[in-house]
Amino acid sequence: MSTQAPTAKTNIKLRIEKVQAMLKAQDLNALIIPTADPHLSEYLPEYWQARQWLSGFTGSFGILLVTADFAGLWTDSRYWVHAAAELSETGIALQKLAPGNLNHIEWLANQLQEGDSVAVDGNVLSISDQDKLLDAFDSRNITLITDRDVLNVVWTDRPTLPTAKLYQHEAQFVAQSAASKLAAVRAGMTDAGATHHLLSSLDDIAWLTNLRGSDVDYNPVFLSHMLISDDRATLFIDTTKVSSDIEKSLKESGISLANYDDIKGALGQLTPNDLLLLDPSKIAVGTLSKIVDDVGFIEQIAPSTMLKSIKSESDIEHVREAMRQDGAALCEFFSNFEARLDKGEHLSELDVDRMLIEVRIQQPNYVSPSFPTIAGFNENGALPHYRATPENFSTLDIAKGGLLLIDSGAQYQNGTTDITRVVGIGTVTSEHKRDFTLVLKSHIALARAKFPEGISSPAIDAICRAPLWQAQMDYGHGTGHGVGYFLNVHEGPQGISYNASNTKERAMRAGMLTSNEPGLYREGKWGIRIENLVVNTLISEPSEFGQFLQFETVTYCPIDTRLIDKSLLDQVELDWLNDYHSQVYIELKNRTEGEALEWLTQRTQAI
Amino acid sequence: MSTQAPTAKTNIKLRIEKVQAMLKAQDLNALIIPTADPHLSEYLPEYWQARQWLSGFTGSFGILLVTADFAGLWTDSRYWVHAAAELSETGIALQKLAPGNLNHIEWLANQLQEGDSVAVDGNVLSISDQDKLLDAFDSRNITLITDRDVLNVVWTDRPTLPTAKLYQHEAQFVAQSAASKLAAVRAGMTDAGATHHLLSSLDDIAWLTNLRGSDVDYNPVFLSHMLISDDRATLFIDTTKVSSDIEKSLKESGISLANYDDIKGALGQLTPNDLLLLDPSKIAVGTLSKIVDDVGFIEQIAPSTMLKSIKSESDIEHVREAMRQDGAALCEFFSNFEARLDKGEHLSELDVDRMLIEVRIQQPNYVSPSFPTIAGFNENGALPHYRATPENFSTLDIAKGGLLLIDSGAQYQNGTTDITRVVGIGTVTSEHKRDFTLVLKSHIALARAKFPEGISSPAIDAICRAPLWQAQMDYGHGTGHGVGYFLNVHEGPQGISYNASNTKERAMRAGMLTSNEPGLYREGKWGIRIENLVVNTLISEPSEFGQFLQFETVTYCPIDTRLIDKSLLDQVELDWLNDYHSQVYIELKNRTEGEALEWLTQRTQAI
Repeated sequence: MSTQAPTAKTNIKLRIEKVQAMLKAQDLNALIIPTADPHLSEYLPEYWQARQWLSGFTGSFGILLVTADFAGLWTDSRYWVHAAAELSETGIALQKLAPGNLNHIEWLANQLQEGDSVAVDGNVLSISDQDKLLDAFDSRNITLITDRDVLNVVWTDRPTLPTAKLYQHEAQFVAQSAASKLAAVRAGMTDAGATHHLLSSLDDIAWLTNLRGSDVDYNPVFLSHMLISDDRATLFIDTTKVSSDIEKSLKESGISLANYDDIKGALGQLTPNDLLLLDPSKIAVGTLSKIVDDVGFIEQIAPSTMLKSIKSESDIEHVREAMRQDGAALCEFFSNFEARLDKGEHLSELDVDRMLIEVRIQQPNYVSPSFPTIAGFNENGALPHYRATPENFSTLDIAKGGLLLIDSGAQYQNGTTDITRVVGIGTVTSEHKRDFTLVLKSHIALARAKFPEGISSPAIDAICRAPLWQAQMDYGHGTGHGVGYFLNVHEGPQGISYNASNTKERAMRAGMLTSNEPGLYREGKWGIRIENLVVNTLISEPSEFGQFLQFETVTYCPIDTRLIDKSLLDQVELDWLNDYHSQVYIELKNRTEGEALEWLTQRTQAI
Repeated sequence: MSTQAPTAKTNIKLRIEKVQAMLKAQDLNALIIPTADPHLSEYLPEYWQARQWLSGFTGSFGILLVTADFAGLWTDSRYWVHAAAELSETGIALQKLAPGNLNHIEWLANQLQEGDSVAVDGNVLSISDQDKLLDAFDSRNITLITDRDVLNVVWTDRPTLPTAKLYQHEAQFVAQSAASKLAAVRAGMTDAGATHHLLSSLDDIAWLTNLRGSDVDYNPVFLSHMLISDDRATLFIDTTKVSSDIEKSLKESGISLANYDDIKGALGQLTPNDLLLLDPSKIAVGTLSKIVDDVGFIEQIAPSTMLKSIKSESDIEHVREAMRQDGAALCEFFSNFEARLDKGEHLSELDVDRMLIEVRIQQPNYVSPSFPTIAGFNENGALPHYRATPENFSTLDIAKGGLLLIDSGAQYQNGTTDITRVVGIGTVTSEHKRDFTLVLKSHIALARAKFPEGISSPAIDAICRAPLWQAQMDYGHGTGHGVGYFLNVHEGPQGISYNASNTKERAMRAGMLTSNEPGLYREGKWGIRIENLVVNTLISEPSEFGQFLQFETVTYCPIDTRLIDKSLLDQVELDWLNDYHSQVYIELKNRTEGEALEWLTQRTQAI
């Protein structure tokens, strides 16, 4: 994810001290450094990895807070073990984000005095997050400063912004022209009553322009903003990334170019008669720094976020093909992997990652992994976001036996994949099997569920969890996230997670692509997760009770039947499983050969 | 519910014309008349039934809107048929509240011009509803006037406020003293940082004081407000309702009396140093009319709303006893009812209502029905909130055959009941049975569900609906509402309804009493609903995944097994049903005799 080398802990101490000196010099009482960039992206260019640079903590999520005499890093349970190690001896306190604990805002509101000032770089603070800070600070008369670049003073060797060239999403995989998408977005603006629309979210811009880039790992996006009005659409980007062909094609779609940094000035040209549509969770405060007072805001989800979540029938057909490619690669991987283990080779979690890339890279239209592979053996699998590193990984010990969890995916021009399988290594116990089978029951419950079209996606999570809950078991992550089409592996607006707010914006619509990934994690023992991607499909005959959706599972790869305790499955569940395996066999049999085909044939047998 | 006689439609026309003349005289462009009182109650004293008086529409929910040349009534699908009949020839347009249609606020915002004025009586407008109006009007420069009593000019023969005396909730059924409850509420105020707390919700005040009243039908509450500070608690009430004994007992609990109308003046005494805790959905704008600017508000759910939702073990034991009483009464009713039908008597839906009251009234501690009985035969049962009236009811036609839905309940000093059963009349078809069995599957799915302690109650709705959804069926109402303890039959904060916002305030806690009532309604054919009350019960052994809850079903009454298509039930469901019936038999066998015991014995046989 990040290519920055680990930093010596003494350096971290020095950096924090420099920040504290700067706070004193600028008469500030606290500095907040979130994990964010001006696009509120999941993966950040190094230029925006200030939190990691300053704290040494390499996890993907955390908020660093520095005051005159304190430095603390807030992160969630995924990273507590990891962060404790990285933060030790740095003087930075690990603050655990969890229900009942103070988050960084509450902690600050408690610590600060009336009249104090807190700085955060407005370029990496969303409007929504600013609102939360203001809510907490306003009544206490604490000032929030977002317009000072407090870090550049300290971070003198800051990396530069990425410069990778843009490329077209291949025409054969694109069903809708940029011009047509732009018209659809403008229709959404009209519905909302907006004169202008600002986009900073990179997946939205990539979708809208049918362009892709390589500015960050895993997500094929490029740093940019877009400003759209009734008669103009401007892409703000480092123009050296744009070939003349692409510039021409953009122009034909009605999109002109401007420099990346000019977005602030362009917004400064809006007048009080203008109404600017924006998603407050996807726009940084700093981007709006030059906007004049009295420009009206319409704060709601971007039309493109809804539009791109609904894949066309042609998109889905390409996704099915990407899934066949990915499934064939996985058959090759698994047959090879198991054969090498059987031969007594000492393979590690890192080998799994390497071998997966080796098989996927041979598939047509392959671009990159879609996220860092998680390969966790036994207790490592119990950390839902574990990542093996050269400094810290496990070797698969057949003698010891247990469960290996592999969560991986790829970007193909014809689709983004994301799959989790668990396989037995050596001897597995009846406890392993019971846990695996209960997770499978949950997976099947969701896979075969039907539900009303338009239901808010968080509302169906309980259907998935019910079988695990019945055994007093649960898992701490969401059940499903939206997935892009050769775009981000995590894309909204839908999300199957009962803790998410069940707003209309998260409604389930036909054509959405979502993960189905219940799990179970026994700390220090093993982790289980079974993940397929599913497409929302309209049941063709509406009933007198309305229109219903069901899922089409589009991930094709065997689920390890050797880990199933058949006595725990009912006939309906068994039928689903056997039908699934029979389909997987049909989809992949002509794409595999030799040992891979043998493996496929064996592992898709009905039970 | 209301004792007002239907009004001649010519009178309605005259009333609307008078309102329109008043609008003109007062230079107003619109008047909104919600269905509400200063306590935001479900059941209103006649004094506050302005919407019914002015429109002639007798349903329990609707918003009347009058402009210079228009009168319209907005109501939801429950009442469309009913409202269309009552509004015909009155000149009032029926406006259907439904997704996709304009609600009264959107309609108004579209119709009005900049600078227009809209009036609504602040005494019957909650702070939350005022916020919605202001949101819609502010940007359009429309003025909202809430401090004019625009109706009294027209409504010259307005009824008086009720004067029924208060009484103590019998000591044997009260587990916690008013003083102790007051201390708990004050602890909640301290947690919230409040200096004062205003309560206008009548169930909260009745719970807190351990008093009951008879000011409205069905809910044993009394009109009042309460203002609580660290060292004072004042009950604002028509003091002629309070006996000297009760006044004395209140005083001993630290609660003094003041006149009902004096609440506004008392709030006017608060200073800018005070912080007033209130639930914006339960406080009318008018109550705050004299409050000075700069008094701080803490807007959140009232501590008592949370506290009273969690019944003590002693409360629950009383509720179980009330349920046995209610179940025994129902056995008597059903055996008698069926015997009379078998003898060829022509019984009607109205007879069902009368007979239910006759058997319940004989039970110890009986007070009143807890809501108007719904007895709906065939197509009438398809209207979830149907109520037979002397002008409009069906006779149970054995020759025709079909389904009779009976939803009824009672207030006992030891508990509030609410139960729905469906019974077959004459011949029933396999379609009836399929529908009934699918609803039963949903009922059982929720009854036997386990789920994490503290989960937001809307999140578990899908567990209940999943079996019906699987058959592409659904129902338009919530699955479960909270139930009071000898208090309102509809009490929050919990509610099992996936459309409700899934906030923390709706979290499931041990001791909550909730209904489990999935249904199915085929317009023009029949309605099915199976409703029991269930108690949240902590599973005694927490697992490594946390603490889980399950339901104890506390309603004891047979479910008509003659309506079940056994082939649609799996073994787990059959076991639940047979266990339930075996428990019902044990709970009721010593409380029934003769034909009622025979009926109970026969209808609790295992299938």
